[in-house]
Order: sequence, then C-alpha cells, then structure tokens
Amino acid sequence: MKYYTVLILLFTLPVMAVQWEALPTTPPIPTTNPQTEAKIELGKTLFFDPRISRTGTISCNSCHNILLGGDDGRSVSIADGKLGKRNTPTIWNSAFISALFWDGKANSFEEHAKYSLVDSTKMDMVNWQSVIDRLQAIPGYRTMFVASFTNGKITVNNIAKAIATYERTLITPNSPYDRYVIGDKKALTEQQIIGMKLFAKIGCSSCHSKPNFSGPQLLGEGWLKKFPKIIGSDYDTQYNLLADTGRYQFTNRESDKHLWRVPTLRNITLTAPYFHNGSVATLTEAVLIMAKTQLEIELTPNQVQNIVAFLNSLTGEFPEQTMPSLPKVLGISVLTNDIYGNK
Amino acid sequence: MKYYTVLILLFTLPVMAVQWEALPTTPPIPTTNPQTEAKIELGKTLFFDPRISRTGTISCNSCHNILLGGDDGRSVSIADGKLGKRNTPTIWNSAFISALFWDGKANSFEEHAKYSLVDSTKMDMVNWQSVIDRLQAIPGYRTMFVASFTNGKITVNNIAKAIATYERTLITPNSPYDRYVIGDKKALTEQQIIGMKLFAKIGCSSCHSKPNFSGPQLLGEGWLKKFPKIIGSDYDTQYNLLADTGRYQFTNRESDKHLWRVPTLRNITLTAPYFHNGSVATLTEAVLIMAKTQLEIELTPNQVQNIVAFLNSLTGEFPEQTMPSLPKVLGISVLTNDIYGNK
Repeated sequence: MKYYTVLILLFTLPVMAVQWEALPTTPPIPTTNPQTEAKIELGKTLFFDPRISRTGTISCNSCHNILLGGDDGRSVSIADGKLGKRNTPTIWNSAFISALFWDGKANSFEEHAKYSLVDSTKMDMVNWQSVIDRLQAIPGYRTMFVASFTNGKITVNNIAKAIATYERTLITPNSPYDRYVIGDKKALTEQQIIGMKLFAKIGCSSCHSKPNFSGPQLLGEGWLKKFPKIIGSDYDTQYNLLADTGRYQFTNRESDKHLWRVPTLRNITLTAPYFHNGSVATLTEAVLIMAKTQLEIELTPNQVQNIVAFLNSLTGEFPEQTMPSLPKVLGISVLTNDIYGNK
Repeated sequence: MKYYTVLILLFTLPVMAVQWEALPTTPPIPTTNPQTEAKIELGKTLFFDPRISRTGTISCNSCHNILLGGDDGRSVSIADGKLGKRNTPTIWNSAFISALFWDGKANSFEEHAKYSLVDSTKMDMVNWQSVIDRLQAIPGYRTMFVASFTNGKITVNNIAKAIATYERTLITPNSPYDRYVIGDKKALTEQQIIGMKLFAKIGCSSCHSKPNFSGPQLLGEGWLKKFPKIIGSDYDTQYNLLADTGRYQFTNRESDKHLWRVPTLRNITLTAPYFHNGSVATLTEAVLIMAKTQLEIELTPNQVQNIVAFLNSLTGEFPEQTMPSLPKVLGISVLTNDIYGNK
C-alpha cells in the first residue's frame, strides 16, 4: 500500500464512521430461499393463521403486530395468558438483522420461526409434527405448498422458509431520514439534524450503524453488544437491567453475560416500551439510559429531545397490505378432535 | 277483506313458507346510525385494535376472525387463556340478525359491542372509562372520532356505533345458492337441489327462514327457538345440550329455558364446531341432531349428505379487505403505565 493511500484512509475513517445510508428497498435474500410470489403469499397466510398455535388463537401477528409497529406495545409478550420473558422486538425491517431474538439465538428468519411455534409462552404447539398435522388437514395449504416448493411438501423447513419470505417483504423505506440522506435537505427539521449530528458525535452510531441502525449483518453470531456496558448506574436497579443475563442464558458462556443483539432504531418511536425487559416506558428515558450506560454520558434534557427528534425521523412508510383469506376446511374445524387438544 | 283476497292468501301461504330469497347486498341500517365512510373506517380500525383489551392482545377479530369464517373454529372461545362459556358465532352476515349472542341478549351490533369489551372472558377491560382513556391517549383516534361524529367525542355510544357500521359491511353475497335463486339454474348441483327441497320439506326452513336463514329480523326480542325442542334424545347427554339453559341465564324467566336465537346457516360449513357449546364436531352430525331434536325426524345418511351439500352452497364471496393501519402513539405505549394494568 502506497503512503498516500494510507493517508487518505486515515482521513476518511472518521467520515466513514458516521456514513449515513438510506434503507435499501430489498434486504439480503439467502440463496437457499429465493423470494417467489407463491411462497410470499403462503408465508403471509401462515403469519396470520392462529390455527398453528395450540389454542388456535395465537398467530405470529399476535405479538409481531403488522397493524401496529410490528410489536405488541407490551413490556413483555403474553400469549394465552402466559407471560413471556422479554419484550417483543419489531418484525419490520428485521430482514436487515442477522441476530434474531434479543439474545441473537437465531441467525435467520428461517431459524427464528422454528423456535416460536413450539415455544410454550408463544404459539405453544406441542411439537412440529402437530404443526404439520394441522396444516395437512387444511386442503388449501396442501395446494399452496405444492405451488411454493419443488418437493411440494408440508415440512418444518418449508413452513419456516415460507414465513421467512413474507417477513423479508416487511420493509418500511422512505422515512424522513432516508429522504434526507438521498438528497432532500428539507426532509428533516433543524432539530432533527442537530439530533442526528449529536447521535453520531457521542457514539450512538458505533453500535446502531448501517442503514438499519442495527449494525452490520454479520454471518455467524451477529452484532451483539453488552448492555449495560457500564454496570453500576442507578438504572441497573431502577429498571432491573441485570436480572436477565441475555445471551448467557442461551450459551452458558461467562463471556456472554449481558450480551444482547443491537436492535434496529427504525420506527423506534412506535415500539415502546423499551429494552429487553420492556421496563422503560418512554423513548426519552431510553435515550438518557443508553447514553449513560453505554457511553458514560449525561445528556441534558435538551440534548435528549434533539436525539428523540432525530429518532422520530426514522419512521418509514408502512406498505398497505391486504388481509390473507385463510384456507378453510369444510364442515369440521381443524382444531376439533385434534389429538393435541385446543382446550 | 274481500273473499277472493282471502282465498289467494290461503293458497299462497304454503308457497311463501319455502320462498327462497337471495341475500341483499346491504343489511338494514338503523336511522340512528347511518353508514358513512369515515365511521366504517374507524369501526374497522377499532375492530382490529387489540389495545382496547386489558392485556392489549385481544381484538374483536381475535374471536370473530374475519380471515376465517368470522369465528375462531373452537368449541368455546378463549381469550388470554380464559375459556368462555359458548361457541363464537360468526360475525359475517350478522347484520341480518336482530338477536345477537346465543341467548339474544343484544338486539343490535351497537348493544353487542357494549358487552364484549368489558366481559372478563373476552376483551376484559376493567370498565368503559378504561376503554375511553386508552383511545383518548391515541391522537389518531381523536381525529377519527372528530371525522366520524357530529359531537366528535370518544364515548361509549360512538365507539359502539363505529364498530357496528363496520360490522354491517361484513356481508358475503353471491353464494351458489344466491346465484341459483336469482336465475342461474346451473349454480347448484343436482344433489344440492335435492338437499334444498328436502331442507324445506322436512321443515328446517320454518326456523332457518329468510335470506339469511336466521328467521325474520324482529324488533324486540328477536327470533328465538327452543333447542332441543324435543328433550329426551340420546344427544342431550352425548353432547351435553341441556347444561346451559340459554336465554334463561339472562332473563331468569322459566319460559326462556333452552331458548336460543336461530343462527344463520350462511357459511355454516366454515364455522365448525357447532351449537351453543360447540360440542358437535361436524356439520353432518349437526344436521342429524337438528332433524331429530327439532323435527323428530331420523334422516338417512343419504338425506343428511344431500342437506349438507345444500348447506355447502350457502358459502358466499368474502370481500377482500385491506388491513387497517392502527393509529400509533409516539415514544410511549398506551399500554404502559396504564392505571388499569396490562400485566
């Protein structure tokens, strides 16, 4: 490398650290699961179908509510009266994150779906065979799987793949921030621009980087960070931030204690309450806490408001969706006489 | 009345008893609650909004699932893990029924909505004030109520009225039966026509009359009938038909024991399981039971199949719907710090 190249790199690095990028309209698509119309429609249908939960009343959309911010607005999720352990992350734009669940235990939508359907605090199916049996009993699904997959079969992998293709369409582009970044200088208010600069200056963007503000899409373990990074603030007890040890619960590795995936900041103003335990009610308070625990900075109320104003500019356009008509069964319910029970 | 008029009436009466009518495209609209675009959109938004339930996860659509047959496919409803007492009736075409709930305790959609939001086995809001408070905290709703009502207020009556206007749009016209009745003689199969004639001949249509097969739309108490009419068949115990005393539970009048509203037969093949307690799994068995308990007739398997074939012809066209985008709140969840609690 010639001397002047190194010099250029040194000078451009600080600029690169705060490089602002608009959200691409399409997310990365795995070569093993290409997007097709038939598969997306099937995935959407499955996403909204409560019959693939034990009681027949919980669908993917029950917690990841597309009609809201892709979440449920609750501290922690609830399904059939059973409380989950963590706050429901938004599904919108999650196609840009390679660490799914708060502890990053899934690296893809395909993997993610395999957990939620058989999680006793979520859709609570007894096992995957019960999911397959339910779908197999619905003639319309048999047709849709044939149209969607070469082997035409209702399998765990195909169910997960179909749901994943639909989820990859859930993108909210064209936020004021995106329009600003691609050249519309009037898309942001003065306060939002001040907030944007402050966001970069104090270092928020070192973790919340890239177009989705959730870091690079790393293969393998994904983009995980300690939270709280600086342990010992009053917030630890006030919001019970340390009770859940994060990725450690999944790996049992000491080094993974309090390690969490970096969530997206897109549409963040729509997905209160905040943090893995949903203990923080407002975005204002969340910004204050993050500055303190991650960057050891005490923001003034004015600075917080500027950053919140900037975060408000990350709300994108939610594509209008038609409701899927779930395939029907004639003269009998797929939930009745189900050997897995719907009581 | 002149003598020949009486004669004509006498001769036309038997014909009138089996007069087949297609479903009107619009149901009766109360003069006190006219349909308007703004109100229908508001009603639809409320219908799909889970934030007007205590836990923030149960919407009207959770049980009356528009994406399915307007019901939940369960024996009895469940919400937040709490079992209801009765089978969820379909919401589709209910605008043609003046007796709502199985016991007919509501005479209009407006009244019906007032029960379900504060029913502890349904949406479970603590009281109506809590519903109003939740909606009041969502700026988008304040705007929608202003656009929908002269007084512009978020009140119990206006909430109920808006939901009712949306529900009055949930009509499934143009079933094979409807097309047959208005002149398309190829719309029904031969078996369906045989079933249709048998349905009338044995007397099913004496209760399941009129275009909606749910009887006339009577003001006052609605069209209620005893079920089982003939007590003493093996079905009483086999399906526990007598445990729930029906309208008696609501009125405490001895004469109301085992009195139920006559449900619609439209889309009946999509709304298994059957009867007030959802104890009967299949439409085939339901037809057999009805003939025995209401008409004292033992149908042959062949006759049952013919009637079921006819009932299959009552499945109409479900209008495609766009998903409402629920109005959002910025930086805080309406469920958090709610004095009514979402735990």
